[in-house]
Amino acid sequence: MRARSAGGAQRRAPAALLPGAPRGAMGSAHCAALPDVRAAAARLRGRVRRTPVVASGGLSRLAGRRLLFKCELFQKTGSFKIRGALNAVRSLVEEAQRAGAEPPRAVVTHSSGNHGQALACAAQAEGIPAYVVVPRTAPRCKKAAIQAYGATLVPCEPSDESRAETAARVVEETGGVMVHPNQEPAVIAGQGTIALEVLEQVRETLRLRAGPGQQCKGIPAVPKTLRLSLQVPEVNALVVPVGGGGMIAGIAVAVKALRPDVKVFAAEPCNADDCYQSKLRGELTPNLHPPDTIADAVKTSIGANTWPIIRDLVDDVLTVSEQEIKQATRLVWERMKLLIEPTAGVGVAAVLSERFQAVSRDVHNVCVVLCGGNADLSSLTWLTDLPGKAE
Amino acid sequence: MRARSAGGAQRRAPAALLPGAPRGAMGSAHCAALPDVRAAAARLRGRVRRTPVVASGGLSRLAGRRLLFKCELFQKTGSFKIRGALNAVRSLVEEAQRAGAEPPRAVVTHSSGNHGQALACAAQAEGIPAYVVVPRTAPRCKKAAIQAYGATLVPCEPSDESRAETAARVVEETGGVMVHPNQEPAVIAGQGTIALEVLEQVRETLRLRAGPGQQCKGIPAVPKTLRLSLQVPEVNALVVPVGGGGMIAGIAVAVKALRPDVKVFAAEPCNADDCYQSKLRGELTPNLHPPDTIADAVKTSIGANTWPIIRDLVDDVLTVSEQEIKQATRLVWERMKLLIEPTAGVGVAAVLSERFQAVSRDVHNVCVVLCGGNADLSSLTWLTDLPGKAE
Repeated sequence: MRARSAGGAQRRAPAALLPGAPRGAMGSAHCAALPDVRAAAARLRGRVRRTPVVASGGLSRLAGRRLLFKCELFQKTGSFKIRGALNAVRSLVEEAQRAGAEPPRAVVTHSSGNHGQALACAAQAEGIPAYVVVPRTAPRCKKAAIQAYGATLVPCEPSDESRAETAARVVEETGGVMVHPNQEPAVIAGQGTIALEVLEQVRETLRLRAGPGQQCKGIPAVPKTLRLSLQVPEVNALVVPVGGGGMIAGIAVAVKALRPDVKVFAAEPCNADDCYQSKLRGELTPNLHPPDTIADAVKTSIGANTWPIIRDLVDDVLTVSEQEIKQATRLVWERMKLLIEPTAGVGVAAVLSERFQAVSRDVHNVCVVLCGGNADLSSLTWLTDLPGKAE
Repeated sequence: MRARSAGGAQRRAPAALLPGAPRGAMGSAHCAALPDVRAAAARLRGRVRRTPVVASGGLSRLAGRRLLFKCELFQKTGSFKIRGALNAVRSLVEEAQRAGAEPPRAVVTHSSGNHGQALACAAQAEGIPAYVVVPRTAPRCKKAAIQAYGATLVPCEPSDESRAETAARVVEETGGVMVHPNQEPAVIAGQGTIALEVLEQVRETLRLRAGPGQQCKGIPAVPKTLRLSLQVPEVNALVVPVGGGGMIAGIAVAVKALRPDVKVFAAEPCNADDCYQSKLRGELTPNLHPPDTIADAVKTSIGANTWPIIRDLVDDVLTVSEQEIKQATRLVWERMKLLIEPTAGVGVAAVLSERFQAVSRDVHNVCVVLCGGNADLSSLTWLTDLPGKAE
């Protein structure tokens, strides 16, 4: 393979690669760690949005715990994916600069969804051509969104083989660099910046309450006594939808390094439960068949790089039905007025599920990552086909 | 009429009433002024949300000006209406306390929409029974939302006469106080608090930029030199949807008292253009027929109390087509991920309209009030029936 791995220069050890896996996979070791996430945060500063964390009294009452929501639907390109994509592209550029080499000739990926848009946007920002391999069958609006960021679309057949083969061919032809949507270490580290922000943002809430010397971001003169009180985390758990696992892997390495007491829960559709099955069996168990779920951004299976992190650092996997996903999504639309995509509803469904009631009552404050807002508004029959109004 | 007017005790002069108009109408004088809005702000502090003002690069590019959005869709009850309703109810309670009398036995209104919910919520917060007169034909979900706040529904026929008669009968029977959705002076003053917040919030933005002594809310020690720079308003115009005119009247009295240089524009569906016609003719000209518009919260006509304020203080009225309203609403859903109701889309449509291009280029920064988020999710055919994707 000619493909370099974005951010490969930042890896700590040139470990043996799993066959076919992007560089960075290290058997039982993890391909990303807190320093990578911190470096990503520095790289992304001012380039992506620091999305707000909001509360909802109504949904908290339904869940029986205090719910907070990290609003990545307001992120550039409408999803968290820009964090990983931009970290990967910036890493490549910086690496070339350090080596006195030219920046990469192109970046390549296969994704008709949010990562495709994100990589196109990141490449455009850096002035690098992007090639995005998309199945012929992808919706026109998704293709248009990718093209709007100046990327070149490369059509393929709607199969995993065709996607991979086509991408490899494009890498060959263009001399570009493959940026895998979720197994690329620089992508994983980029997504982890969500966790740094959440932990800071709930701490900021505390600061503002800590009065009398009310503080705000950017004012360094916090008295020591106040500083101590900041160590109390205002969040006891994060709930993160899992597809390829890039987001939860990045979040887990950051959270467990900084606050091992904070739980990290994966949320997954029953119809695409490879992460659940993998944790159950203790070995990577991809989806056998192409999953059928409304949560289209988590149809992918976890992979060789995200599995070891998920295995070691994710506390539990919560699976939810299609009906639960639809009801939770509608509930967020109706009550919170946030236009999340159904994939973000997976996390909300998890905390509202009966199963979540079994989670220890010590977990008072739960932050759900609303991962994106790119809902397909031309096909909303799921919304009106629901048997009853979501309660 | 046995009906008292909420907040009547705050009026400055016991002026002659227009026949049938709620107390507070004073011919050419205005029924509410800045001190009423300030008093409302004090009354509402901590009881309603200080909703965020957000920017949108994408929509600003489309409009050719910097657009800001006051997010009243995130307000309690899903719309700004709680401001006026709660100010009215609190005024009645305070008035009774001052007089050493019992609090009102009940509050009454006729509205199947956002004001009905808001009054029910306000009354519940104060422990006062609420009666809401709604047409038999109102959607079940709207009735349920009103009942969820503990109010009693009183059905009537779907005509203005039946609504008014039924409400008068309920006032008679319960000894309650009528709180008109948009002509009640305390309601108008309550809605005006939106303007106080917007003017403060855009100033806060300036403060944070003013460095080096970065400031935040609640820290009073702003050096004099910095304070001077705050006098530069970061908003040159507010755009406000108009139905009965309660919101724009309250906003106009506050804005024109504090910043006469800031423009106040009304936005109205062409199909319900009584405000436009009234300004054109210089006299109150209600809609002749029940208007047919998707912006269901602005079907009402302006009235005896809001008209003089609109006549004197509103700079212009911008009318928009149904198609423009639908496209603007969809655009906000798609690009900003904010689930506004179509009535909020009226203001967005106005700033995106060709006609708005004629507004002076000195008007750089425009704040659109996104008045509510109670969209009917069970009937979204308008969204998919649009001839093309909103661009």
